[in-house]
Amino acid sequence: MPEFGKVVVFGAGLIGGSFALGLKAAGAVEDVVGFGRTPATLKAAQELGVIDRAGINPAHEIGDADLILIATPVAQMRDILSRILPYLGPRTVITDGGSTKGDVVAAARAVLGERIAQFVPAHPIAGAENSGPAAARSDLYRGKKVVVTPLPENSDDALDRVKLAWSLCGADVYELTPETHDRVFAAVSHLPHLLSFALVHDLAVREDAETYFTFAASGFRDFTRIAASHPEMWRDICLANRDALMTELDGYSRQLDGLRRALAEGDGRYLEEVFGSARAARRAWADGKLGEA
Amino acid sequence: MPEFGKVVVFGAGLIGGSFALGLKAAGAVEDVVGFGRTPATLKAAQELGVIDRAGINPAHEIGDADLILIATPVAQMRDILSRILPYLGPRTVITDGGSTKGDVVAAARAVLGERIAQFVPAHPIAGAENSGPAAARSDLYRGKKVVVTPLPENSDDALDRVKLAWSLCGADVYELTPETHDRVFAAVSHLPHLLSFALVHDLAVREDAETYFTFAASGFRDFTRIAASHPEMWRDICLANRDALMTELDGYSRQLDGLRRALAEGDGRYLEEVFGSARAARRAWADGKLGEA
Repeated sequence: MPEFGKVVVFGAGLIGGSFALGLKAAGAVEDVVGFGRTPATLKAAQELGVIDRAGINPAHEIGDADLILIATPVAQMRDILSRILPYLGPRTVITDGGSTKGDVVAAARAVLGERIAQFVPAHPIAGAENSGPAAARSDLYRGKKVVVTPLPENSDDALDRVKLAWSLCGADVYELTPETHDRVFAAVSHLPHLLSFALVHDLAVREDAETYFTFAASGFRDFTRIAASHPEMWRDICLANRDALMTELDGYSRQLDGLRRALAEGDGRYLEEVFGSARAARRAWADGKLGEA
Repeated sequence: MPEFGKVVVFGAGLIGGSFALGLKAAGAVEDVVGFGRTPATLKAAQELGVIDRAGINPAHEIGDADLILIATPVAQMRDILSRILPYLGPRTVITDGGSTKGDVVAAARAVLGERIAQFVPAHPIAGAENSGPAAARSDLYRGKKVVVTPLPENSDDALDRVKLAWSLCGADVYELTPETHDRVFAAVSHLPHLLSFALVHDLAVREDAETYFTFAASGFRDFTRIAASHPEMWRDICLANRDALMTELDGYSRQLDGLRRALAEGDGRYLEEVFGSARAARRAWADGKLGEA
């Protein structure tokens, strides 16, 4: 007997499709229904076996669903929740795959009201070069981290169901508050993207940009790899998490001020201390001795 | 008939040793003499065939050398030049492998006086994980860039000899002024290292550092790879090039101020413009369409 009867995914692309395939591979779901903005995508998802059926009308699919995953761009969340709400069964649990949580929780609270108890926010830390249903893989989440950010209103049962689903996909499930989640990801993901974009842009707009890029080498290549990320997606993430990101940026700017002062004063001891602390931490992290691997 | 009779290298490790091996592989040198601070290193270099002989006394080796490469940490440059100067023949050309040029040129001018015409500064853009004579390889410079930064006093013959040597090692030789060199490398190498060190340090000193590093993923890994670089070496590079580096850091901080303002004002258009410009340039560079590959 599968753990889940009906699972509904909004967005049957890389994130939602891989979730569906992961549950199917685990024999953990009877029926996967997909909703999406373009019929072509849903048709492809069905043909690829990512979903069992394309949903036509939420009125017929939501009430008896065990679990609903909203795996669309965060901007569509509010609209989808509004479409779901009228048909939401008493035991249906909703979760999401958004990479920021504070804004998602605010949108969900605004739309769902007291039904917010049925919404358990989550963030799977997995991506790939490609997107769309053809990129979906049953093992995308295997050994990857998924952060669940429970709300005070969530029942243990609702929380457990979301954690179980991600575990069945092979993920390692962590719990953070939405606030801690957003602070941590501002620091380890959103800020580095902003910094990398800023560096490349700063060079690209120079008259003699050609000369600079001619001598850019492997260190530059690594540092700027994330500057090739999707501009609209990162605009949205940065705006969605802007409070935490501004706090991180301010702290980082203070670090740079300290280094600026050390350079001006020729304070090699300070530079070596910062560089040495960074190297020790970076190596410990790479060796699995700092942070859970 | 080899292009060079006697070549003397100070420092027979990765940089100097690979230069010697490159010239030998090209059949371009008759005699390679190595000097270094530790007899054990020189002995190893000789046993590995990196050098033909370990030099005992500069008085006997410098006068008839065609080319001298100083491939030691920049801090030793002044001392080595002082030891060389009394024996310098009229046609001997000196070059170096330092990764900053303004400070090297200043040191060379201070020591060499009017013999500065015989010093042609250079910077091979090649490194590897390892160091020492055992890491030296005849093909280290093949297809790599070497920047020669000629001085107004250099004769065409001296400049050509240095360019020829690096070409024989398989390198693509470029010319920049020392000032342009330092400005370009401050921007594409020294600043990214500083920024990467600063980010990791900023996280490492937090009480809850474990939590941050637990959720650091592939973007963080790429961005911070250079934060595992050698602290003393980068302290020296940053101080050696601090004027250019401070100028770059100030320009970069202005970029961050602009992004900070856009975040505060919710100016998504500005963010998308910067991110889009960065992505376009990063992709063009990776595709070999921006900067000479």
